[in-house]
Amino acid sequence: MAAFSSADCSSYYSSSSPYTLAPVSRNGHYRIQFVKVSSLTNCPSQKVFSRLQTQNTSNSNVVGMRDVATIINPAERKTPVEKLRDGSLSATFSEERNDRLCFDSRKDESTVSITVVGASGDLAKKKIFPALFALYYEDCLPKHFTIYGYARSKMADEELRKTISKTLTCRIDKRENCSEKMEQFLKRCFYHSGQYDSLENFAELDKKLKEHEAGRISNRLLYLSIPPNIFIDAVRCASLSASSTNGWTLVIVEKPFGRDSESSAALTRGLKQYLNEDQIFRIDHYLGKELVENLSVLRFSNLVFEPLWSRQYIRNVQLIFSEDFGTEGRGGYFDNYGIIRDIMQNHLLQILALFAMETPVSCDAEDIRNEKVKVLRSMRPLRLEDVALGQYKSHTKGGITYPSYTDDKAVPNDSLTPTFAAAALFIDNARWDGVPFLMKAGKALHTRRAEIRVQFRHVPGNLYNRNIGTDLDQAANELVIKIQPDEAIYLKINNKVPGLGMRLDRSTLNLHYAARYSKEIPDAYERLLLDAIDGERRLFIRSDELDAAWALFTPLLKEIEEKKITPEYYPYGSRGPVGAHYLAARCNVRWGDLGLDL
Amino acid sequence: MAAFSSADCSSYYSSSSPYTLAPVSRNGHYRIQFVKVSSLTNCPSQKVFSRLQTQNTSNSNVVGMRDVATIINPAERKTPVEKLRDGSLSATFSEERNDRLCFDSRKDESTVSITVVGASGDLAKKKIFPALFALYYEDCLPKHFTIYGYARSKMADEELRKTISKTLTCRIDKRENCSEKMEQFLKRCFYHSGQYDSLENFAELDKKLKEHEAGRISNRLLYLSIPPNIFIDAVRCASLSASSTNGWTLVIVEKPFGRDSESSAALTRGLKQYLNEDQIFRIDHYLGKELVENLSVLRFSNLVFEPLWSRQYIRNVQLIFSEDFGTEGRGGYFDNYGIIRDIMQNHLLQILALFAMETPVSCDAEDIRNEKVKVLRSMRPLRLEDVALGQYKSHTKGGITYPSYTDDKAVPNDSLTPTFAAAALFIDNARWDGVPFLMKAGKALHTRRAEIRVQFRHVPGNLYNRNIGTDLDQAANELVIKIQPDEAIYLKINNKVPGLGMRLDRSTLNLHYAARYSKEIPDAYERLLLDAIDGERRLFIRSDELDAAWALFTPLLKEIEEKKITPEYYPYGSRGPVGAHYLAARCNVRWGDLGLDL
Repeated sequence: MAAFSSADCSSYYSSSSPYTLAPVSRNGHYRIQFVKVSSLTNCPSQKVFSRLQTQNTSNSNVVGMRDVATIINPAERKTPVEKLRDGSLSATFSEERNDRLCFDSRKDESTVSITVVGASGDLAKKKIFPALFALYYEDCLPKHFTIYGYARSKMADEELRKTISKTLTCRIDKRENCSEKMEQFLKRCFYHSGQYDSLENFAELDKKLKEHEAGRISNRLLYLSIPPNIFIDAVRCASLSASSTNGWTLVIVEKPFGRDSESSAALTRGLKQYLNEDQIFRIDHYLGKELVENLSVLRFSNLVFEPLWSRQYIRNVQLIFSEDFGTEGRGGYFDNYGIIRDIMQNHLLQILALFAMETPVSCDAEDIRNEKVKVLRSMRPLRLEDVALGQYKSHTKGGITYPSYTDDKAVPNDSLTPTFAAAALFIDNARWDGVPFLMKAGKALHTRRAEIRVQFRHVPGNLYNRNIGTDLDQAANELVIKIQPDEAIYLKINNKVPGLGMRLDRSTLNLHYAARYSKEIPDAYERLLLDAIDGERRLFIRSDELDAAWALFTPLLKEIEEKKITPEYYPYGSRGPVGAHYLAARCNVRWGDLGLDL
Repeated sequence: MAAFSSADCSSYYSSSSPYTLAPVSRNGHYRIQFVKVSSLTNCPSQKVFSRLQTQNTSNSNVVGMRDVATIINPAERKTPVEKLRDGSLSATFSEERNDRLCFDSRKDESTVSITVVGASGDLAKKKIFPALFALYYEDCLPKHFTIYGYARSKMADEELRKTISKTLTCRIDKRENCSEKMEQFLKRCFYHSGQYDSLENFAELDKKLKEHEAGRISNRLLYLSIPPNIFIDAVRCASLSASSTNGWTLVIVEKPFGRDSESSAALTRGLKQYLNEDQIFRIDHYLGKELVENLSVLRFSNLVFEPLWSRQYIRNVQLIFSEDFGTEGRGGYFDNYGIIRDIMQNHLLQILALFAMETPVSCDAEDIRNEKVKVLRSMRPLRLEDVALGQYKSHTKGGITYPSYTDDKAVPNDSLTPTFAAAALFIDNARWDGVPFLMKAGKALHTRRAEIRVQFRHVPGNLYNRNIGTDLDQAANELVIKIQPDEAIYLKINNKVPGLGMRLDRSTLNLHYAARYSKEIPDAYERLLLDAIDGERRLFIRSDELDAAWALFTPLLKEIEEKKITPEYYPYGSRGPVGAHYLAARCNVRWGDLGLDL
């Protein structure tokens, strides 16, 4: 087997592997899988060859190589299998920070073709192509891969490459060969012009892909970066005309996944006419954020957190998202959805589910998603009195006049669409009964941030109440997980002010990512694309999760629209409508992000 | 009533006070006390006038002013009473760091006389006089105070002042008037020459003190900075000849408090011939350390710690003391005691008791000391197999030869006195059954430090075991409280290394005092002297505590001496004898201070 020139992604097998190739059925297709009789472990130490793992296997001793792969010192060039044989492979708990390991599916026999459907769109340009390049740059793409842009406009390959190249950056570890790498990457990018509902056009794409695949095992990933009304057409055509015949085919779908339970269910039914559940990868890019990924690690690998993770100790949980800009002339799409559908029903609810779920059986995708669904199904559907709605209005500050939401030309003048919402949610299970989970999401606020705030209860019978004063809330512990922009975790604790006497104040036990980790944190899309290529579904949303999420919000959304609820107006750049405070007060909660110590 | 020129110590009462003066019996003497009918609270927010509080009162509504005093903004010059009247006094939970509040007993009517018996000794010069000056400098001493040095040598007041002045520094908040303050302070320092066992000489002292007291209420503090064999004589003479007749008299005693149960009990009996229990202040300067003081605040004012504080979550606790120097020619005293008596039986055991005690009824001294005694009484007396002993030997490093312990001229050549000891202790109560409390103390080691390390258990059913590797100990959470030299608290947690893939590493949630608090931390002696003057016994050791402490160590100490146990030799400047590791291993513990991440 050829040696790879990979810098960071080690090769995990060799021809003298103790693993044997075995055909395995997945999505009705047979594909090759490495199998080894070994004890099953419940957590992948590294994403390696999970593509080679199957969910449908009935042999519980079959395990993908990812289960034996572990942290490899990049300086060591032995393959894991060589190490396994000479006994030097053992999982280490390294303090090193700079080696990044990627999965490796660069078998000579297989290829991955990634088709970005809607290649001329903003998301494709800003996120998808740059993320693919970053993965390539980090040596995380398979040896044989091809990227296709697919859209209606006519364009030559060169034109696409030119467009893409503008948005590619060598932001990670400025290496010397960046422009060289970029050139190599662009050579693997092609363009195919076609209608989204044309079997014929997709058949042409299929033909081109086959040429690139050159008889190797064909794995195909479709990224649908197109409006939802043409999802089904594109999936139908791609599935019928451009599926892989000997490897896997999967489709990444971006939100919106409908606008209520019914439309979402219809979309899912439509997709499932052509795809199995495990071919559908619903992306929620918040799940790819570093600290969202870290949430489960924090909870489940630290003894000090899990005992506190319940109604007994946690008083409330706050999930906060705010943007410091409005729709800025692009409110057409937004106006049809509003902030609840845009942020709460997906991003914040997903984080909530991860936060609140019971310990899963394992870190496998299905185990985690099973637990998340249980959380969602234990929640009460929202009522009108559980929310506060807002819409930003024009505001002049420092001589600059900021527009109102309805100043956006793409937004109707009489729009009642909320650009801000606060909501109180409750999980009626043994762990969380009575604990308010407060969400807050808004545009055109005073700050840009996303964070989870866990406010702990007051200390019962606190010996130091006298030292704390009348506002016990101020003395309650708080765990803050800042998701963006400055990733950080900190725990607010009380301690004695050094010096004579007994004065307490609040300090923070602090872990600031930027200070601790020198490496730039990868974009959420990189992680998610890599996971998708790897077949790892942990961070993607399953159909029943989506149904449960919509079930919580649909009655509320309908009532808001039917009753034409007027949102409370708040000035552009402010802290949002006052209604959010009254909502919080009804739940005996104080928003943690509006205090002095942000 | 006169206004005080205090900078930091506010005056807490005025002549229009709602508090009234009432005579109260304390130690058989009547003294004046401010009494006020108010609800009792269980924790003093600030040490104010606790001297005015009595333990013997049967009126549960009698409360010293310290119970209503609270955090005062030093910028505000209203007295608390004025504030109480105008309603502006409320306890605040301030984020300010720089105001230090001191008790204030500067009544025009009363004086405090502090006599340092053994004024020419090292401790007096290095610690006691500088601490007294620091308190004066910070305006924490009463308006009327007098300091007397008492020793056998003949000396004029001026000579004492000259000697003292060499060790006084303006280390706190370098203010401009430091030399002025120093001069004022020295003017209040006097010297009296006398034998420690002379009733007559102490009667002369009494006469001089009376002159200074000028008919005011007389409060007297004796600091015994003399060898233990003359404790009783000095106390007898001071008590009979130089006690206050209308105020309080108390005696601060420094260790050693005997060398085993019997000698300690004899010393206590001797002291109690002349003093009541509440006149005896046994000082353990470790209890005055900032982070030892903070230990109870951390535990009892933070919800996130107390639930974890038991055998269910804590795997072991380590109390570590190490010095990087030997006896350096002054081993005469040490050789008679050894490291167990010098460090373990007092400093480390006191910290252990504070760490492990149940929640006290209140922060009052007796409540805390009651809980500490319960811990000590729940512990198993140490056996020979529970300890590892060491003695440092000569070592040459970098061309420098460091001496062995027995090279010390004050130490017998065949001394078997341990300069290092490690011990495993167990508390047989519901909270701590089976949790090893490991102590380690040594001289001439590679580093100087004192710290508490709390190692938590492994995560049961850890989802991430695969990612952690074979050594689960490395992934266990650890709370480290560094007492000296660099005060800090940090919690070691596992988190995901940012980047693609799933790699865990250990980070620390960190609170570093030096970075957080700009102000220099006061010396332990300042706190303890201030507490003593204030009558606050929380940080002093009660007789029954001392008895319980000796009961744990006496059988072991006797066996070591009777069996002439040879300590394991370790090189000067090393990490101590290997025996400490075997002891830890028998308890299934790994020392936390010898890892990579110190």
